[in-house]
Amino acid sequence: MSNHSPETKLATHTLTSLYVREMDLVNDMMGKMTFTDTMFYHIMGKHPTAGQTAVLDAVLVTLMEHGFTPSVIAARVTYLSAPEALQAAVSAGLLNVASQFVGTMEDCAAILERLVMAKEGIEAAAKREVIQAHAEKRPLPGFGHHLHKPDDPRSPKLFEIARAQTEIEGEYLEALLALSSAMDKVHGKHLTINATGAAAAVMLEIGVPARIMRGFAIISRAVGLVAHIMEEQECPTGRTIWKTIDQTIPYTGTANIKHGRKRG
Amino acid sequence: MSNHSPETKLATHTLTSLYVREMDLVNDMMGKMTFTDTMFYHIMGKHPTAGQTAVLDAVLVTLMEHGFTPSVIAARVTYLSAPEALQAAVSAGLLNVASQFVGTMEDCAAILERLVMAKEGIEAAAKREVIQAHAEKRPLPGFGHHLHKPDDPRSPKLFEIARAQTEIEGEYLEALLALSSAMDKVHGKHLTINATGAAAAVMLEIGVPARIMRGFAIISRAVGLVAHIMEEQECPTGRTIWKTIDQTIPYTGTANIKHGRKRG
Amino acid sequence: MSNHSPETKLATHTLTSLYVREMDLVNDMMGKMTFTDTMFYHIMGKHPTAGQTAVLDAVLVTLMEHGFTPSVIAARVTYLSAPEALQAAVSAGLLNVASQFVGTMEDCAAILERLVMAKEGIEAAAKREVIQAHAEKRPLPGFGHHLHKPDDPRSPKLFEIARAQTEIEGEYLEALLALSSAMDKVHGKHLTINATGAAAAVMLEIGVPARIMRGFAIISRAVGLVAHIMEEQECPTGRTIWKTIDQTIPYTGTANIKHGRKRG
Amino acid sequence: MSNHSPETKLATHTLTSLYVREMDLVNDMMGKMTFTDTMFYHIMGKHPTAGQTAVLDAVLVTLMEHGFTPSVIAARVTYLSAPEALQAAVSAGLLNVASQFVGTMEDCAAILERLVMAKEGIEAAAKREVIQAHAEKRPLPGFGHHLHKPDDPRSPKLFEIARAQTEIEGEYLEALLALSSAMDKVHGKHLTINATGAAAAVMLEIGVPARIMRGFAIISRAVGLVAHIMEEQECPTGRTIWKTIDQTIPYTGTANIKHGRKRG
Repeated sequence: MSNHSPETKLATHTLTSLYVREMDLVNDMMGKMTFTDTMFYHIMGKHPTAGQTAVLDAVLVTLMEHGFTPSVIAARVTYLSAPEALQAAVSAGLLNVASQFVGTMEDCAAILERLVMAKEGIEAAAKREVIQAHAEKRPLPGFGHHLHKPDDPRSPKLFEIARAQTEIEGEYLEALLALSSAMDKVHGKHLTINATGAAAAVMLEIGVPARIMRGFAIISRAVGLVAHIMEEQECPTGRTIWKTIDQTIPYTGTANIKHGRKRG
Repeated sequence: MSNHSPETKLATHTLTSLYVREMDLVNDMMGKMTFTDTMFYHIMGKHPTAGQTAVLDAVLVTLMEHGFTPSVIAARVTYLSAPEALQAAVSAGLLNVASQFVGTMEDCAAILERLVMAKEGIEAAAKREVIQAHAEKRPLPGFGHHLHKPDDPRSPKLFEIARAQTEIEGEYLEALLALSSAMDKVHGKHLTINATGAAAAVMLEIGVPARIMRGFAIISRAVGLVAHIMEEQECPTGRTIWKTIDQTIPYTGTANIKHGRKRG
Repeated sequence: MSNHSPETKLATHTLTSLYVREMDLVNDMMGKMTFTDTMFYHIMGKHPTAGQTAVLDAVLVTLMEHGFTPSVIAARVTYLSAPEALQAAVSAGLLNVASQFVGTMEDCAAILERLVMAKEGIEAAAKREVIQAHAEKRPLPGFGHHLHKPDDPRSPKLFEIARAQTEIEGEYLEALLALSSAMDKVHGKHLTINATGAAAAVMLEIGVPARIMRGFAIISRAVGLVAHIMEEQECPTGRTIWKTIDQTIPYTGTANIKHGRKRG
Repeated sequence: MSNHSPETKLATHTLTSLYVREMDLVNDMMGKMTFTDTMFYHIMGKHPTAGQTAVLDAVLVTLMEHGFTPSVIAARVTYLSAPEALQAAVSAGLLNVASQFVGTMEDCAAILERLVMAKEGIEAAAKREVIQAHAEKRPLPGFGHHLHKPDDPRSPKLFEIARAQTEIEGEYLEALLALSSAMDKVHGKHLTINATGAAAAVMLEIGVPARIMRGFAIISRAVGLVAHIMEEQECPTGRTIWKTIDQTIPYTGTANIKHGRKRG
């Protein structure tokens, strides 16, 4: 928290001009800046380098779409209920971008931030972190994936893209690899660095702190949800989801059913 | 509605690969496609031309940030209430992207779709549309702005960007200008084409139908909301909003206040 | 819309007292008023009669729980994604209380309001309404149910409860029955008055206008959603919903799958 | 988490009957049970005693309305943006019932649950809890209020109502008073037990565990939000909120404003 008095640096306007931060929207941004560059500039408060843009694009493309996840299911049934309120379907979906499925990204980022700051050095700190998590039977955020084995193919690709940028220093990547090495030793087997772990490291490399990282996941996932709603308009699945689930979860209460058969 | 059986063309995966529509995410998208191109491809189901990308970028940049709007106010107070749930703040904000402030875009788009299809020709149809709205004392979506006078500077810029693309045919722009010309005649004065009106026309030009247009506004506005939350983390305004409004709206009920002064 | 200057009659407080509308919360409400009476008083601005309370209780009890609906599915998957944010699960669920599944209540109420005001009399107006809907192949809100045949058992019960209250005048019930009679004639068969249709009529009888009716459905459904989340804490279904739906909706795109089997 | 296979005990139906848990909705609930009794039964899985109902009613009445809070501000501006989607306004408001303003209720409840289970006895455990929080400069949830001094008048009223019920055992009340006594000693001054602290204790007394407590706050607050929307329909404040805040938060960026005056 800060003790600034309330103020904003994000936007102002006059009768004839609009400004986003210190730039003139119409004359300096529209038609000149891409959406990705604008996003970095607006959220981070400075213009991205080419390397930062490349990494941000790659992360946004990676996180956008993961199939029929809880997020998509919530959005599609809400669109069935309220086709007049597209924004409600997207919002219901985005409420799923939280601690369980994307939150691992920021939890992993918080650890990486700690390792890079550690006085004892990254490697020693990584070992300590892994041993402690193992002792407490706590999974380490950023590791393991239920589907992609032995390795999540998105992670090495994100590393490759990040390393190809000259301005990436690589200390957060180093920290993540130190964690990975310690994980494999402690567990006696290989655990993949998953896409959210890799995304956490490369986002830190381009200057995005853990505390706002979820915001970028939300932006990316919003695109996936809009695509699902567009598909829902053309080939609806909402009623199928409803009926399928209604038949899948049996009623096991003890009501004294008088007429007809119990559902389920 | 359709009678397709439920299916999806949006994503699938194997143990070692992931696919977004018909593309290989890791080998063909990450590091090769920008976020804007990926967004168009994923939502629209085909790759954008360079001109389509340029127009989409311009629209996304235009709609991203409009200062302390209802959307931002909802997001900032919700972040004050639930700093642990960034997604809830964004969702509360996005629930404001609806009929009143962005919905005019899709309402205007629906009219433009109608004009372009009209047998009587665009100009005659535009006149009829304007006269009818005027007779019913109905504002025409896409026209007028409470701040930017005499003209919203974003609109001519969007037209300019769209016209610079060789693949833009211009029939929706023509329809919007026909409406504008009819509006000025019927009202006996100039009414600006506002940014949502112009955005509607250029989005139609790149193939985005009215029925999904709000989705792009939501994506764009999500970026603005994340920027506001990032600023809120550094320079909070939530409590100021709360206290200011609490003092602004007086209690005018008839409670028999026994001790102390009434609030307000 | 009104041209009142902004004000509120809902609450105020001093250092030692709190007021809800014109009542002292601590001395006159807590321990003395039930939640249902308080709800009516706070929303409607006057104390309910015993009959109004009885009808409101009956409607709230009726609408609370309908099994694994879209609303419940959205809430349960969101709870899986964000167990730290119970309010997000409820909100995702409530975003489904909209035009399709409860909205019929307020749409039906709007028709009943019209019929009761009609100069031609309720019966004539009802016939005209039904004939017009039939000609336009428009379903009439409040009629028909996919499960409860030939009659939705909740509807006669709501009528019975309403009629047992001496202060219920019955004109909205009369209007609904006039619609029903006209429906059966025009369709040549019996169509049930469903629970939302019956609820609309009895809510109008106790003074709740169509424009706020959805609010009471939301309150009632919030209880159902909290019950589902309590059950989800004890016997989770979220992952089952996810996996079941992921397997139910096949991928039918044309990706050139290189390794392994397609999902679905 | 449990290893039950997915199932539900909440609802089922046949062609002619509906069941909520083990009860027949039409024959045994509608017209016979109040909304409060139904709520307790449905969420908690058993019928309340008269004392449990009295306490639950009192808590729901207490938490319903707190004036122009962040929750209400979010709901009112969202209603301005989307008057066609009343559920979105309520949802945006409910997303504010989280860690900061009602969450203290469940945090306090979790401490009380711990104290009542403590082997060392309630009093000793309470002292240890307070001393530890004080050493870590952590506020204790349930204590202190920015407006109601020296005492929040709702708390003694909730205690009085709870104690008047013969079936209330009082161990959680005892635990809260032990905390209060330790707080006053450690701080060398009196700190009020606030309404959420008192509500936590009496809710535990009637059997509601900490983990679902927020759900009851959400239900209660939903009523307050619907009342605010009803008032908003009659006397709108949304635009006043927007304009007031827009003028309150100055732009302090360094844009080179070319024409006209900066906003703010």
